[in-house]
Amino acid sequence: MRSSVRAVSEFLQGRVIGKDDAVLNGVASIATAASGDLVFVEDDKTLASALESGAAAEIEREFHAHHTYQKKMIVVKQPRLAFARAARLLRSALKRRPGIHPTAVVDSAAKLAQNITVEARAVIGESAEIGEGTCIGAGCVIGAHVSIGSDCELYPNVTVYAGTRLGHRVIVHAGAVLGSDGFGYVRNPDGKYEKFPQVGRLEIGNDVEIGANTTIDRGALETTRIGRGAKIDNLVHIGHNCQIGEDVVIAAQTGLSGSVVIEDNVIMAGQVGIGEHARIEEGVIAGAQSGIPSNKVLRGNGIVFWGTPARPLREYLKQLAVLSRLAKKE
Amino acid sequence: MRSSVRAVSEFLQGRVIGKDDAVLNGVASIATAASGDLVFVEDDKTLASALESGAAAEIEREFHAHHTYQKKMIVVKQPRLAFARAARLLRSALKRRPGIHPTAVVDSAAKLAQNITVEARAVIGESAEIGEGTCIGAGCVIGAHVSIGSDCELYPNVTVYAGTRLGHRVIVHAGAVLGSDGFGYVRNPDGKYEKFPQVGRLEIGNDVEIGANTTIDRGALETTRIGRGAKIDNLVHIGHNCQIGEDVVIAAQTGLSGSVVIEDNVIMAGQVGIGEHARIEEGVIAGAQSGIPSNKVLRGNGIVFWGTPARPLREYLKQLAVLSRLAKKE
Amino acid sequence: MRSSVRAVSEFLQGRVIGKDDAVLNGVASIATAASGDLVFVEDDKTLASALESGAAAEIEREFHAHHTYQKKMIVVKQPRLAFARAARLLRSALKRRPGIHPTAVVDSAAKLAQNITVEARAVIGESAEIGEGTCIGAGCVIGAHVSIGSDCELYPNVTVYAGTRLGHRVIVHAGAVLGSDGFGYVRNPDGKYEKFPQVGRLEIGNDVEIGANTTIDRGALETTRIGRGAKIDNLVHIGHNCQIGEDVVIAAQTGLSGSVVIEDNVIMAGQVGIGEHARIEEGVIAGAQSGIPSNKVLRGNGIVFWGTPARPLREYLKQLAVLSRLAKKE
Repeated sequence: MRSSVRAVSEFLQGRVIGKDDAVLNGVASIATAASGDLVFVEDDKTLASALESGAAAEIEREFHAHHTYQKKMIVVKQPRLAFARAARLLRSALKRRPGIHPTAVVDSAAKLAQNITVEARAVIGESAEIGEGTCIGAGCVIGAHVSIGSDCELYPNVTVYAGTRLGHRVIVHAGAVLGSDGFGYVRNPDGKYEKFPQVGRLEIGNDVEIGANTTIDRGALETTRIGRGAKIDNLVHIGHNCQIGEDVVIAAQTGLSGSVVIEDNVIMAGQVGIGEHARIEEGVIAGAQSGIPSNKVLRGNGIVFWGTPARPLREYLKQLAVLSRLAKKE
Repeated sequence: MRSSVRAVSEFLQGRVIGKDDAVLNGVASIATAASGDLVFVEDDKTLASALESGAAAEIEREFHAHHTYQKKMIVVKQPRLAFARAARLLRSALKRRPGIHPTAVVDSAAKLAQNITVEARAVIGESAEIGEGTCIGAGCVIGAHVSIGSDCELYPNVTVYAGTRLGHRVIVHAGAVLGSDGFGYVRNPDGKYEKFPQVGRLEIGNDVEIGANTTIDRGALETTRIGRGAKIDNLVHIGHNCQIGEDVVIAAQTGLSGSVVIEDNVIMAGQVGIGEHARIEEGVIAGAQSGIPSNKVLRGNGIVFWGTPARPLREYLKQLAVLSRLAKKE
Repeated sequence: MRSSVRAVSEFLQGRVIGKDDAVLNGVASIATAASGDLVFVEDDKTLASALESGAAAEIEREFHAHHTYQKKMIVVKQPRLAFARAARLLRSALKRRPGIHPTAVVDSAAKLAQNITVEARAVIGESAEIGEGTCIGAGCVIGAHVSIGSDCELYPNVTVYAGTRLGHRVIVHAGAVLGSDGFGYVRNPDGKYEKFPQVGRLEIGNDVEIGANTTIDRGALETTRIGRGAKIDNLVHIGHNCQIGEDVVIAAQTGLSGSVVIEDNVIMAGQVGIGEHARIEEGVIAGAQSGIPSNKVLRGNGIVFWGTPARPLREYLKQLAVLSRLAKKE
């Protein structure tokens, strides 16, 4: 969507320096900005290059506003956040036109709200419900009795197993699998594994984003839950019965065994592994590749844990240093 | 399928206490059980809540059977196993109606047995064979000359490369890729990698279950084999030429390089990594995130290995303790 | 394609010993070779079994050529490389017949070159360009404005996000996701994560191979780049803005956070994790499961790094040895 500097600034509750009728039609990095682009500046180091860039306007902190520059400026408190919001505003009109592609296969008992997009070859199962403004990408398979809220975006080739529920404004990237069977067996007297029932559900809250090829299992008998605002990267695995809190961040390739509890505001870096029934309490930060054993509880808002088994960062670094010193002595 | 307590008990070779004509139509956890549900009790702790639950009946050990309760009880030796079997019995009638969806693309030279389900938009290639009672999910792509046994279930968007063979009662979850090319190259005098032929096969035995988005490569020149009854979780990688034994369990995100041998009854936790040509002998248990170097042999039925490089658990724990003590002394 | 021993030898710039008019129609391992197959021998150990095998001919080093054997032989400098090339030659005629399957959905504004194959149910978006000889597998979804070069092979169910560019002769295995959004958010004053724009691009050079279910994110504002000849295994994650050099090898389940730089000729084993903005300089070898912290630089052509945090192999082994010794003393 094209928008004037003034309109963008009003949306951001900012203040414009310079002429405010210039037209913006997108965001860019300073290095790639061309005419019509908006950029942002967070510190003095990037200011000079921003001024020399081809950008039409820049978002700045008040700090820089006393200078006299030739660029149009939108002055705000948090340039990065304002930039993110401006980007959403400028892209909002790019949304797909609603409509159901003739090659999509929609069950006659599915309930579709207004303004929905169903792309080519998507399959929507019996009694599934899709909310207003949601887009189901090409090749997605939405199982029976699935419920998807409004303004969601499912990229292509996503599979949603029967009975899964998604809230509003959920983004699911390509190839993700939601609501698959958990990994549970009972060994019989002959030593063979028999499947334990995986008949629970998966519920995903509002404003969650799920990365490409990530897999989230349904509960065995209960419900796997992903809390509002959680952000989950690519190739993450979340096992059955996990309870993920609100505003949790999980980076790529992290894996959660069954029945793990992650409280609100936890941050997990990439390739972390968590054993069954572990609990990560509010605000904990788990470093990349760290391993949290089964049944373990990690506690401490803002505390960074590292290593396997995960321990406070300071302890971890001290152990590394001791080992390094001993090895050098030899 | 609805079934009486008596019929379920007979199927489980159990003994009923209480009236046996109550109707069951599903299984549930104690917390969520409603009228018509069957639950199971493994210990005294859960007994009280089971009795207070809404369940119609519960599966119990003989131990509890001398008490006088109001619930109907099915008394068996292994409640968890009996519960798993009862769940299968009660769900058995939920199977999809057989039929080939009009949007499926089935090659004219494919051989389909009776009572097959092919869901919307599935593609079945030239000369592929599908056995009786098997279901091919929506969006699956079955390559040429693939052979799939009877009573298999492939969830949506699975890809099976040409020539792959699956046994009977194999379950494959959404997004899994079976029989993809292995990772093998030869470096030429110019320093460029040229593809080594990946023209072998993948064979999967009976009763195997494969998790969502898991990838299993075909052999380079030989055959990758997954033994009967192996259970493989989500996002697992199995490289070319691997030989996986019977009743092997591999948890999520574990990765096997090429030509790894896993003997029968091995259990591998999540995020384990195994180097080329390593051999894990019968009954070994590899702890989460452990790493087994190339060419290494792990031996010892029931022995738990941990860490990278993987060593017996006791040794691993001792090393952790020593390091922790040394760091604290400083 | 069937070909004579003489024709294959000429293609390999080899020298034939024995009758050269025997017909070859494929390659095989020594153990499985049947009449018509070509095998290769790299050392004395395999020579005897090669001679006893059912193969029609074998590729050998000059070293063996003075012996008198009954087999036809093609004598070359590098048997493994010659074998790989012979395999390509013999398989070259197996290519799919070009054509667009009637169930494929091709946007009217897409630009398709000659001799293209578009398999069943593939979707090709608006203004996408596909080069000559390329095959788009069943169920692939190619976004708008994607550009794919000539002689590429995309296996089934691949998703390519809008605007992504692939060079020539790129192979993409099933389920891979190319150009998905990176993982970037800005936390707002209410503690909620807001999406940072992920509007950059992904560019993939010539002769790259990408494994099954691998995910590569587009740049946030810039471009993620995969250099010519890079070989990437299954279930790898590459974050936004990464710059991967030429002839880089990345084994399965390795994960790169955002803005990582991998220079030419780097080799990364499986399950390696790399933090944001790390740089792996030319020719470095990173061992399996090693972890490279954010902003770290690894340097040294041919140097092997191991462990977390990654250190030179010698150092890593020494530390392991020291720790093991201390634990045994206790």
